[in-house]
Amino acid sequence: MFESVELDNTISKDDYEKKFSGIRTKLFNMQQKLKAAGIPTLILLDGVPGSGRGETVNLLNEWMDSRNIRNHTFWMASDNERQRPDYWRYWRILPGKGDIGIFFGGWYSFAAAKTLKGKYKNAKFDRAMSEAREFERMLTDDGVLIIKLWLHLNEKTQAKVIRQRKEMGAVDPLAYVDKNFPKAGYGDIIKIYSKIIRLTDTANAHWYLINCQDRRSRNIAIVETLIHNMQSSLDLKNTPKQEETPIPPVASSRIKFILDTVDITKTITPADYETNLKKYQANLKDLTTKAFKKNVSTIILFEGWDAAGKGGGIRRITAAIDARIRQTIQIAAPNDEEKAHHYLWRFWQHIPKAGFVTLYDRSWYGRTLVERVEGFASVTEWSRAYQEINNFEHQLAEKGIILVKFFLHISQDEQLRRFKDRESCEWKKHKITEEDWRNREKYGDYYKAINDMFIRTSTDIAPWHIIPAEDKRYARIDALRILCSVMSKKFLSL
Amino acid sequence: MFESVELDNTISKDDYEKKFSGIRTKLFNMQQKLKAAGIPTLILLDGVPGSGRGETVNLLNEWMDSRNIRNHTFWMASDNERQRPDYWRYWRILPGKGDIGIFFGGWYSFAAAKTLKGKYKNAKFDRAMSEAREFERMLTDDGVLIIKLWLHLNEKTQAKVIRQRKEMGAVDPLAYVDKNFPKAGYGDIIKIYSKIIRLTDTANAHWYLINCQDRRSRNIAIVETLIHNMQSSLDLKNTPKQEETPIPPVASSRIKFILDTVDITKTITPADYETNLKKYQANLKDLTTKAFKKNVSTIILFEGWDAAGKGGGIRRITAAIDARIRQTIQIAAPNDEEKAHHYLWRFWQHIPKAGFVTLYDRSWYGRTLVERVEGFASVTEWSRAYQEINNFEHQLAEKGIILVKFFLHISQDEQLRRFKDRESCEWKKHKITEEDWRNREKYGDYYKAINDMFIRTSTDIAPWHIIPAEDKRYARIDALRILCSVMSKKFLSL
Repeated sequence: MFESVELDNTISKDDYEKKFSGIRTKLFNMQQKLKAAGIPTLILLDGVPGSGRGETVNLLNEWMDSRNIRNHTFWMASDNERQRPDYWRYWRILPGKGDIGIFFGGWYSFAAAKTLKGKYKNAKFDRAMSEAREFERMLTDDGVLIIKLWLHLNEKTQAKVIRQRKEMGAVDPLAYVDKNFPKAGYGDIIKIYSKIIRLTDTANAHWYLINCQDRRSRNIAIVETLIHNMQSSLDLKNTPKQEETPIPPVASSRIKFILDTVDITKTITPADYETNLKKYQANLKDLTTKAFKKNVSTIILFEGWDAAGKGGGIRRITAAIDARIRQTIQIAAPNDEEKAHHYLWRFWQHIPKAGFVTLYDRSWYGRTLVERVEGFASVTEWSRAYQEINNFEHQLAEKGIILVKFFLHISQDEQLRRFKDRESCEWKKHKITEEDWRNREKYGDYYKAINDMFIRTSTDIAPWHIIPAEDKRYARIDALRILCSVMSKKFLSL
Repeated sequence: MFESVELDNTISKDDYEKKFSGIRTKLFNMQQKLKAAGIPTLILLDGVPGSGRGETVNLLNEWMDSRNIRNHTFWMASDNERQRPDYWRYWRILPGKGDIGIFFGGWYSFAAAKTLKGKYKNAKFDRAMSEAREFERMLTDDGVLIIKLWLHLNEKTQAKVIRQRKEMGAVDPLAYVDKNFPKAGYGDIIKIYSKIIRLTDTANAHWYLINCQDRRSRNIAIVETLIHNMQSSLDLKNTPKQEETPIPPVASSRIKFILDTVDITKTITPADYETNLKKYQANLKDLTTKAFKKNVSTIILFEGWDAAGKGGGIRRITAAIDARIRQTIQIAAPNDEEKAHHYLWRFWQHIPKAGFVTLYDRSWYGRTLVERVEGFASVTEWSRAYQEINNFEHQLAEKGIILVKFFLHISQDEQLRRFKDRESCEWKKHKITEEDWRNREKYGDYYKAINDMFIRTSTDIAPWHIIPAEDKRYARIDALRILCSVMSKKFLSL
């Protein structure tokens, strides 16, 4: 694998300067074009210590317009990161449209370190590689350009470089020593990375091996590789492409609608409501305090028809949780920054840290509901979403996070009553818009999309809880009751 | 996940007959259209015992033209299968273009059984799911239609069905008892499959949950699901599609060609040749006998320029191996059956069983060489091939199979001499064709493709061995020597 990039490829200073000024300008222009085209670029940099990874990061910032470049290193994991699923640290900082993210290390150096420490054996290592492939696939499916560079030196040259650095007193740990990285010889590193590259050199995110024996040649190789990928990515974007629509997962006519079975006549008396509210809120206070002490995080999400009472339900929950350990995220149409990223990006931002609670008022399921029904997402995109969401929730579950998903169900008649009620009330008027009326007309489409969502995402690790919400108070108690029950069960299993 | 398909959906006999005759005809016609369009269809059938999986297989054969349907069960693994990588059993029997393969069980029931037996814990289970996703992706990328059906019953109905069967004396193990399947209750099965379905309900190969409470409804649901998928797949095929060309992994101008470094002047004297030939052949005889006794399989492949001496090299090896335990596979242009399958399909056929040796005279690397250079494979296809091949070889290595890859290198001058030599010799004339001369003209393209192949597929588990072959005898000895050395090392590690 590395033979070809261990050969001598020295270039004279004159030849270099002649060649380099041209391609450097080209690279700079290419960056501007990608910016204009709104293509996000992720440059992942890995390599043998001593190959000049740090220097390369600096040079890339010098060669291009550094204003829309962000540089990231991962060798000092923060508590914040350790308390979230492994990929959280990468999701947060993914480049948006037109931006470039330079990742010094990343998921591969993470996996390499785990392996060197003996924490990843066969199956775990393979799983990490699959996760990497699928993470990258999700991004490239979404239009991200990923360029993976392996900066290579042969063993002899590496030994020489390290010796020289020592002689020069250049023991600056920022330059090439990764404290989190276990002590590893050249052979160990090569052994692991040849496995990594073999398993993750995919058509949508290739590895490029860069010969770093000679600095000038290295620079040319890197710049040419970037130009090649950027140009191709631009060509791809500019080709009027006809999206390959997959088979939409439409169910047969014999599929029954789960919402049909929900008994929405359930009610609760005002007295019972007050008693239960107090009881469950006290219970929830205890449980969330316990969760905080035990470092167990909780995510609660509410979906449901317009005016089904999501806000009221959420407030009855937050009232019981210490304000210092919870946050509520309202999900509306994505803003520009959110639109510049993968649709899951904005939800990753708010994953709670250890012991905290995040409530989502609407959620990532918008992809399979409003985006599907309104055509904001293509068939390809929403068909893919079920798997992407299941994978996302899998990562939450693997990290031990409690995830509770509520869907608030009301009848069309009740919805109409509430709409009218809102319109006639001065301080509720703002809550009802044209859009709400339009959504109502698409009731049938939503009904179908909701059912598909239940079938494909009500899972062992994250089942949907459908709450009859015709009686608002009943719904609030039901949600509190379920939440307490799920959290109690979790503690029994700890 | 299963709530929706546990609801009552009984249909009266009259309504059923009215509806069913229409869709049954439609299904039959659809099958003919898929046949004409050359789309391979894989129907994977899994479900709760008692849901009527066996009956469904029979019905599918009745409803459609059974002449191009093949039915497969996997619950009795043969020795043949156990001695190969896990996916070998599926590769062998994949449906060809226009054919339908009905898989009763498959990779999912395999993984479920391993999990129930406690052999798959977290990481192994996740890896199995990733492998399934990627296997299916490789097939759907190649145009295969995959339909995954989960035949569902709720717990109560299942208990009733099982009781009824027992009362009727229907304890035929063929009907629903899988001896390899560990004893598992309803809850265990549902628990595992809800995980499986969650992790593998992908946009390119969705799961469809079928409510089997009522047989008539089940039949309609199955037929409608098949029609829906077949129609969509046909629409897809008929849409003039513009293939999304990925970024070809072309290296920078600073990449050196590894073949440039090969010293082809190496020779051996006739006397040394004879001595060494005897020595290494004796050595190889011992080693392959030992391998046979230890159940270690070996795959040896030869690539190289036309007239580089692949045949002669192979014969010097086979001469040393007992004819009963080895086979040589000549790879030429694919025949019709091979063309009807994924390009890796024909190579999977010949994976040796435990202790045996397969020699490939040319190999799957054709995808990255002749198919790339001649344009038989699109850029998308050959760019994808490196990863597909690395994955394939990974599966061989995981099974403990020895894989030795040779590339025989000669100069252009030497090739010309040999071509002319062949043309002037009555009994060698047939070995030289128009095509050989054409290939020669594309020397530069091949040179590049070969270098990319070395970079991307010379891996830790399966490195390329480049043999200087200007002197045929030197090449033969070199190959024998390397082969003996690799095999000896393998035994040291056992």
